[in-house]
Amino acid sequence: MVRTIELVLQTKGHTDILDITDQVARAVGGSGIKEGLVTVFTPSSTSSLTTLEYETGAIADLKRALEEIAPANREYQHNLKWGDSNGFAHLRAGLVGPSITVPVVGGQLSLGTWQQIIFLDFDNRPRRRTLIVQLVGE
Amino acid sequence: MVRTIELVLQTKGHTDILDITDQVARAVGGSGIKEGLVTVFTPSSTSSLTTLEYETGAIADLKRALEEIAPANREYQHNLKWGDSNGFAHLRAGLVGPSITVPVVGGQLSLGTWQQIIFLDFDNRPRRRTLIVQLVGE
Amino acid sequence: MVRTIELVLQTKGHTDILDITDQVARAVGGSGIKEGLVTVFTPSSTSSLTTLEYETGAIADLKRALEEIAPANREYQHNLKWGDSNGFAHLRAGLVGPSITVPVVGGQLSLGTWQQIIFLDFDNRPRRRTLIVQLVGE
Repeated sequence: MVRTIELVLQTKGHTDILDITDQVARAVGGSGIKEGLVTVFTPSSTSSLTTLEYETGAIADLKRALEEIAPANREYQHNLKWGDSNGFAHLRAGLVGPSITVPVVGGQLSLGTWQQIIFLDFDNRPRRRTLIVQLVGE
Repeated sequence: MVRTIELVLQTKGHTDILDITDQVARAVGGSGIKEGLVTVFTPSSTSSLTTLEYETGAIADLKRALEEIAPANREYQHNLKWGDSNGFAHLRAGLVGPSITVPVVGGQLSLGTWQQIIFLDFDNRPRRRTLIVQLVGE
Repeated sequence: MVRTIELVLQTKGHTDILDITDQVARAVGGSGIKEGLVTVFTPSSTSSLTTLEYETGAIADLKRALEEIAPANREYQHNLKWGDSNGFAHLRAGLVGPSITVPVVGGQLSLGTWQQIIFLDFDNRPRRRTLIVQLVGE
């Protein structure tokens, strides 16, 4: 059995980090699938998904690390070529990756107690994003 | 067909890196699934999974890189806020990610000759970890 | 339903980055699977997969970042131990990861307009690589 749900999010950009655990859990609950894999995928080259303890400290630490790895105001070939200013966003998205996969067990996401699914929008402006939540299971 | 197996591991913490390929291969072998995807997931915000040639040199190189990206003894907002000292572990886990997915072909993990599935426990103390191994296939 | 296809690629090494979106889309189209997950996996410890806007600027920016995180000419324990010179390639592959998973919806890859599936060969010589493309769905 395969079920596909779209999740629409409004983000502020500039490494806006959202906790989307509840929305994904509701998609899982409504799917009728009790055992299987759920993948959340962002059809975008300037945003990413991973898991984190969603609290202001860990969020600030992750933002600092990403700013050190791919500073927003550095010179990027992407910017020079296209007259763009979001080269850092493309780089961060490529490194962190566009998806997260979580096992569903007994109809529930098998996340840890302090572990949330986060969506990171690296782009340098607010965006309306549509994520794909897909379940494969039984 | 979906099969879910738990894997219990004892780790030493401080970026303890374990080769869990044999345990995952046994879970695959016992599942009855010959073709499909196996996902190994850690329900935790201070540990990760990836693949690596599991030999002391590559392991030391990976530890050095993670210590440079997210040094253990730096100041972290997570630590300041919670009186904690494992902010580096949360950061490393968020960057490396909580899961690995490998195709199963002919009942076998389709890994390369020098490629092992590794579990990285970043936390700053020994932990008993339960990983979720889930197969979806036929 | 599970379908497994092999993709053979010739690479130049030294972080050669290839756009494999068309090859994966053809594998999906020929599989008969309309809804489900496709995973592309590299059975190797010196190459990776992710997504990126495949244009020379973003590619150059990603190569620069990887060279900063894991410089090709630094001393690596892997090299000292094995008389090898691709320790940087093992490190990059472990950090970026060996697979990418994309939902298939209506028989199509659900990628964004500016988002391509890329294969990164970090090894320090040309390689003939066989990737595993596996679909699970209906």
